[in-house]
Amino acid sequence: MVWAPDPGAIGLQVERLDTPCLVLDLDAVERNLDAMAQAMRGRVGLRPHAKTHKVPNVARMQLERGALGLCCAKLGEAKVLAAGGIPNLLITTEVVGEAKIRRLLALARQADVMTVVDDERSAHRLSDAAMGAGLRLRTLVDINVGQNRTGVEPGEPALSLARTVDSLPGLELHGVQGYEGHLQHIVDPEQRRTASVSAMDLLAGTVELLLGAGLPIEIVSTAGTGTAAFAAERGAVTELQPGSYVVMDSTYSGVGGLSFENALTVLTTVISVKPGVAIVDSGHKSLSSDLGPPRPIGLAAEFDFQGDEHGKLTFPLGRSIDVGDVVRLIPSHCDTTINLHDLYYVERAGVVIAVWPIAARGRVQ
Amino acid sequence: MVWAPDPGAIGLQVERLDTPCLVLDLDAVERNLDAMAQAMRGRVGLRPHAKTHKVPNVARMQLERGALGLCCAKLGEAKVLAAGGIPNLLITTEVVGEAKIRRLLALARQADVMTVVDDERSAHRLSDAAMGAGLRLRTLVDINVGQNRTGVEPGEPALSLARTVDSLPGLELHGVQGYEGHLQHIVDPEQRRTASVSAMDLLAGTVELLLGAGLPIEIVSTAGTGTAAFAAERGAVTELQPGSYVVMDSTYSGVGGLSFENALTVLTTVISVKPGVAIVDSGHKSLSSDLGPPRPIGLAAEFDFQGDEHGKLTFPLGRSIDVGDVVRLIPSHCDTTINLHDLYYVERAGVVIAVWPIAARGRVQ
Repeated sequence: MVWAPDPGAIGLQVERLDTPCLVLDLDAVERNLDAMAQAMRGRVGLRPHAKTHKVPNVARMQLERGALGLCCAKLGEAKVLAAGGIPNLLITTEVVGEAKIRRLLALARQADVMTVVDDERSAHRLSDAAMGAGLRLRTLVDINVGQNRTGVEPGEPALSLARTVDSLPGLELHGVQGYEGHLQHIVDPEQRRTASVSAMDLLAGTVELLLGAGLPIEIVSTAGTGTAAFAAERGAVTELQPGSYVVMDSTYSGVGGLSFENALTVLTTVISVKPGVAIVDSGHKSLSSDLGPPRPIGLAAEFDFQGDEHGKLTFPLGRSIDVGDVVRLIPSHCDTTINLHDLYYVERAGVVIAVWPIAARGRVQ
Repeated sequence: MVWAPDPGAIGLQVERLDTPCLVLDLDAVERNLDAMAQAMRGRVGLRPHAKTHKVPNVARMQLERGALGLCCAKLGEAKVLAAGGIPNLLITTEVVGEAKIRRLLALARQADVMTVVDDERSAHRLSDAAMGAGLRLRTLVDINVGQNRTGVEPGEPALSLARTVDSLPGLELHGVQGYEGHLQHIVDPEQRRTASVSAMDLLAGTVELLLGAGLPIEIVSTAGTGTAAFAAERGAVTELQPGSYVVMDSTYSGVGGLSFENALTVLTTVISVKPGVAIVDSGHKSLSSDLGPPRPIGLAAEFDFQGDEHGKLTFPLGRSIDVGDVVRLIPSHCDTTINLHDLYYVERAGVVIAVWPIAARGRVQ
């Protein structure tokens, strides 16, 4: 079930919206999109990750600025983007299990999707299913460049899997993916660059090995918002997968050397006050906590979660705040906070200009 | 936008569902509902909290077993329940702000809702708005019984506010609420009982004061799953607000003296393996982490979050687990995990018998 976006919201000052709600500053989004597109133009391709924003609206803005396609974490996200007319989609997580393979094949009939594999038997299963459906699936070999999550080990194991993929009749090898998610939040830019260079050494070395074996490696896909600038310097890399740069969050704001702006806030209302403390109407159901508490804007206050529906603002220096006051919070983690909300209230200069359903919210499959 | 529940899911063995997905064991739910209803019958009223399950389906099952109404944390939840035919709804959080008061009044025209206040000026604003709309709002005074979240202080401050509510033309005083959320997870039952008795002393003492002043206190609403049994022993208490008992979670499983069963699991698939480690397709977007990681069922393994879309199972004792294997996880926190999912896959004895849209998911306003 979906909230009918309240048409009465359009034209309102943001502070008059009902709360909690998720507010997207479209001017800041556009500046972030422009900054990334300009930084990478002529150097490396951009395939931004839709797992962050989860809307065709922003995907279209990314394509208009030269993105060659989009990344999706889940088939359900890809389905929403494809329905929104977005071409050239890479599913960045392994598609495993009968039900999911069936859905991938159904999607591949209607949309331009590419998949990843990190396992010989999974590759065989995908190929067999694709053959049965009369399809060939464009495929990247997913390589572990140090995150130790998914991905075949670089070097010989990757070569062996790439040869399998290349040989299977239902798959069509197009290149490799190597995502260094563990490096994105390293605060010091020089430390992050050094770590990125090591991860890219693993990726580039494997690409060289695969090319030397005559395999068709036209795509080398990697990097997030924190490492995009470093990966772009590497000749072997053909495209970047950043997601968070579109809206940022309070964790990324603390990561050095990034010039993107915060474009995302959660609006909350003070519903109860005690001396030095205000209780607001946002808790775990409207703000994610996996990267800690959100940060209030324009207030010398700390936010603590107070359960699912409440938060507490503590004012160490004292301050007058009143029941009914509205506070803006910068989420600590954009992806997981966006995934809690059904709607973006889109603002320019403090006025609501649109309400966008977050079409791929909750598409966890 | 909503997932069309896959009609093909009905009749499947649960393990064949696409993952991640949220599975509700309806037999266990019914046993939990029966156990609570039987324990309280003839002793105290039950007004279970819908913020946990978020569906009219379960609310109806609670009413059928004698519940006198339901609690909702948010107006949006109440709207969904009212549309599902559920009567007698208590909004357990303060309704503050122009937009929200307008929505409360719109709801009060169509549904049988009751609200809470903890602040004099908020009471006046509610009353003025209700008068303007030609309504009188049934109201409870929300009392702080030690959680230090919302609630007017017990004793004289509560009396003063209750007199205000009683005197305001747009409000109709019906009683008090005093929720001791901070006690629900105290592991030791005796410690929990002692703490509950102290909180109920504050509540009962205030009720006595208000009754002594001639105020109409017919409702005294309190308690959660952890303290329901203790609050039920208190003569002053007229109704209980437990939510989690319907499905439970791994945190509540560790709380002593509760006899409810776990009825909620998240199904996840192993998508990648390394020695001693399996990567599964559930992360922060399908499992909440505010009370820690989920607990695998039937596996001597630890779960660690690996970002938004992945989890890691580590097998300290070694074990053979393979790509494609399906694992069941007990969420650490039922409310916030349910709030991530659009659908319940409802099972009896391991077979899917229904797919229920989680109608009030995301109703954070």
